[in-house]
Amino acid sequence: MRLTSFTDYSLRVLMYLALKPERLATIPEIARAYDVSENHLMKVTQLLTRSGAVASVRGKGGGIRLARPAQEIRLGAIVREAEGNSPIVECLGIQPQCNLTPACRLKGVLTEAFDALYAVLDKYTLADMVSQPKVMAKLVRLEDVFGHGDAQRPTGPRKTGKALAS
Amino acid sequence: MRLTSFTDYSLRVLMYLALKPERLATIPEIARAYDVSENHLMKVTQLLTRSGAVASVRGKGGGIRLARPAQEIRLGAIVREAEGNSPIVECLGIQPQCNLTPACRLKGVLTEAFDALYAVLDKYTLADMVSQPKVMAKLVRLEDVFGHGDAQRPTGPRKTGKALAS
Repeated sequence: MRLTSFTDYSLRVLMYLALKPERLATIPEIARAYDVSENHLMKVTQLLTRSGAVASVRGKGGGIRLARPAQEIRLGAIVREAEGNSPIVECLGIQPQCNLTPACRLKGVLTEAFDALYAVLDKYTLADMVSQPKVMAKLVRLEDVFGHGDAQRPTGPRKTGKALAS
Repeated sequence: MRLTSFTDYSLRVLMYLALKPERLATIPEIARAYDVSENHLMKVTQLLTRSGAVASVRGKGGGIRLARPAQEIRLGAIVREAEGNSPIVECLGIQPQCNLTPACRLKGVLTEAFDALYAVLDKYTLADMVSQPKVMAKLVRLEDVFGHGDAQRPTGPRKTGKALAS
């Protein structure tokens, strides 16, 4: 039982964008910050854009940014969206296979347990996650936001990088 | 984010055993009850035996049973054991790869969220899950416990059955 890599990277992309709310970010830039492949981040940002958390500006000089203030983006909503509709256990799916299903109390208990997990996530917003923006920006080499510039870093597309575990 | 099939079947095996506390069960019998392969259940029962939830009696007429009363087996303990030590997110593992890790609040929030999930599971015991034993015993064709006999059912080893999803 763990977050999917997709969810993990959705959170990381949003945290990166929350660190530079006034400027557009690019996928190559975020890929460098986390040392992951651009392809994986493309899929993540496509979902984030569809779900309304991220806004995309096309064309030269374009990029992505948060579609709403970080204070308005709840972690529970991000995780629910990224995890999708996959049931937490087979018997909560559309076609349960377990013979016990009609009389089983486990379904209710597991639902209660995951509701408790999401209730904690819903207490926090993306803004809570970036409460040390200067320290975090340095960690992801986002110095330009604070006036140190990053002209010496490569700006071309990055094709390699760690692949996300499935 | 979902329970692994291993955890799912650990819970199902223990629920089956809780339905016949006075008698030994066999893996072929449980495999028939849930229509899954014996091989998968072998692995599950090996872990359950190692963890002390299940006792095994070897030899002819042998089988498995709960090692403790169902009232003393907490769901949280079963799920923790079956899920193993895999971190809920990469940054909580032994070698976190994310550059944000040193200053990231997400780790603490995710730990709090999963603690809340396990706190719910710890409220319930295996006995709570089989509060309708007669109905459930029928659903898994465990009629013999209640005196209906099951002599007409095949007793030989079952090699097929649904495989567990990974």
